[in-house]
Amino acid sequence: MTPGLASARSTTFGGEPRPLVAVDCNGADLGPAEVAAGAALAAAQGARVLLFGPLAELGTLPAGVEAVDAPVSIAKAVDPVKAARTTPEASIVQASRAVAQGRAQALVCAGGTGAALAAGTFNIKRAPGIYRPALAIPVPVPEHPVTLLDVGANAEARREHLVQFAFLGAALARTVLGVALPRVGLLSNGEEASRGSTLVLEAHAELSERAGAEDNAFEFVGNLEGGDLVSGRADVIVTDGFTGNIALKLMEGVSQTMLRAIRDAAMSSTRGKLGGALLRGSLGGLREQLDPEASGGAYLLGLRRLAVVPHGRFTRAGFAQAILRAERGAREDIVAQTHTALERAGALRRAPVSASAASLPQAQ
Amino acid sequence: MTPGLASARSTTFGGEPRPLVAVDCNGADLGPAEVAAGAALAAAQGARVLLFGPLAELGTLPAGVEAVDAPVSIAKAVDPVKAARTTPEASIVQASRAVAQGRAQALVCAGGTGAALAAGTFNIKRAPGIYRPALAIPVPVPEHPVTLLDVGANAEARREHLVQFAFLGAALARTVLGVALPRVGLLSNGEEASRGSTLVLEAHAELSERAGAEDNAFEFVGNLEGGDLVSGRADVIVTDGFTGNIALKLMEGVSQTMLRAIRDAAMSSTRGKLGGALLRGSLGGLREQLDPEASGGAYLLGLRRLAVVPHGRFTRAGFAQAILRAERGAREDIVAQTHTALERAGALRRAPVSASAASLPQAQ
Repeated sequence: MTPGLASARSTTFGGEPRPLVAVDCNGADLGPAEVAAGAALAAAQGARVLLFGPLAELGTLPAGVEAVDAPVSIAKAVDPVKAARTTPEASIVQASRAVAQGRAQALVCAGGTGAALAAGTFNIKRAPGIYRPALAIPVPVPEHPVTLLDVGANAEARREHLVQFAFLGAALARTVLGVALPRVGLLSNGEEASRGSTLVLEAHAELSERAGAEDNAFEFVGNLEGGDLVSGRADVIVTDGFTGNIALKLMEGVSQTMLRAIRDAAMSSTRGKLGGALLRGSLGGLREQLDPEASGGAYLLGLRRLAVVPHGRFTRAGFAQAILRAERGAREDIVAQTHTALERAGALRRAPVSASAASLPQAQ
Repeated sequence: MTPGLASARSTTFGGEPRPLVAVDCNGADLGPAEVAAGAALAAAQGARVLLFGPLAELGTLPAGVEAVDAPVSIAKAVDPVKAARTTPEASIVQASRAVAQGRAQALVCAGGTGAALAAGTFNIKRAPGIYRPALAIPVPVPEHPVTLLDVGANAEARREHLVQFAFLGAALARTVLGVALPRVGLLSNGEEASRGSTLVLEAHAELSERAGAEDNAFEFVGNLEGGDLVSGRADVIVTDGFTGNIALKLMEGVSQTMLRAIRDAAMSSTRGKLGGALLRGSLGGLREQLDPEASGGAYLLGLRRLAVVPHGRFTRAGFAQAILRAERGAREDIVAQTHTALERAGALRRAPVSASAASLPQAQ
């Protein structure tokens, strides 16, 4: 199936061979060739990539990039769960199986979050003790990066899901972003503990209790309002996938609209044009900071291997970032670190307290 | 109770005496005096205002502004429903009763949405056929104003509530904003009709059916994503109060953060400073357009009289706008127009089809 795999470039990192990233090329708005071009960019930085997509459309592959011919796409399937079950030849299913079988160490899906979630769950499977995988995205707020989850893996959630998302997000913030004691908040329609949907009230109560009782895997800062996504009051903000998806797309929409409005303002007069030209350097930095492609997309947390889900409308630059993010995540073993953290905090589904877990040093 | 009322300035508008606006001064972050100052600004434009608040703190009142001493506030009550029932002397309860009894024609509450909603519902009461009042806010998106509801009256909603919100929002857009056939969308985590929470799926199905079957009170444009709050794809966007509140505060937060980031970028170098100075005029316009105070806050729709709820952190300028908005709404009789529209569309709770309703001209 993957004849070229043995000859893949054995680029190393710190003496270890670099992880191989399996990439589903179908589902991107700009087509599979754009994803392949992203893989080439990532390979130029030493990444090792195994593409799954229509070989005829992928072009010439550089060193470090191999491909398996997988033209069948279920990225736009109306019922992705059914499609993932019944279409073993689909690119995302093949890519997921490559990761499940250990042929690759991380998964990137270039489009079709529903299909990625379904194929990932069936093949890579949920990590032990995880209720549901969640999509976590580090939002590039200038000066206050914040990790928001779930941004769309589950349109509906229960109390125990939100509670586990808090632990998943905190573990990600600690492992990837280096935040020693992440501040975790719960997105709501008011700051007071009495405000929120039934779901939020229940999750709030349990998080308050756990934040006091368990070792402090994170600091629970309570309910946060919409504006707190950019206020710097938390490192991790937890919500259901319906609300999180709306919030994420709204943030992107507003920031892009503002940048356009500023450009238009600058173009509205000679004076403005000159001002805009002088400001270009500084504003360019802001634009880059806010660019959703720069961070590479969302982490799909809660599977036995790491998956990264960039947005389907990304260009090659975004797909390259997604591949590099997945590779880095595999290298840092986010999955194992997260699992250990959840186990230690008693946040896994059956909360196993093994002798080895008990003897681990306490989280600071 | 209101000895000064008879001597209130009888400013007229088109030959009619201008409506009197009852204003609860308690609950504003800057205190009751700021609300009174806002009333003075509105009175300078001819508005007639009856304040309810701590008389000792309101200062000297100009012509057109009267006040009832009502120092008791329930704006911060943990249980606003109970507080509104058991505190008849509270300023918001007294202001609501003044409107309910016809002493004033519209209500403005300067802070404490929960208290305003509770006191309004108990005293002014829901209009016939309304399931639940909703907070509707015209969001000042440059070039594409959009009315979002519910932004926080109800943390949870049922299908029939969202459906009625669509009709309420459409009626508001037609009456106040002059949109002949408003495009109404449903906020969701994906555009496809198959995406969304159970609530959204149910509301989508009913709105699709009604939009085809009833006279076209609005065009149903289906599910919209977070980014569509600024894309101009709809005139009215419907959601539950939990999601709507988060979305509204997120939009405000992101736009204010962006304006700050741009200012910082402009201050980061001599070149940037000069550019910023040259752009000031154009960006000032954008800042004004985006200013949440400029529009005066949210309409509380679904009561027998109009209420307007500015944000508690507004300054006098925002409170003045809220009072003028309430007065204009009373003059244009938004409540009656909305009721007629809902009745005609069969969107009221018991859907009465009276002979008079049947003989009304069809909405265009």
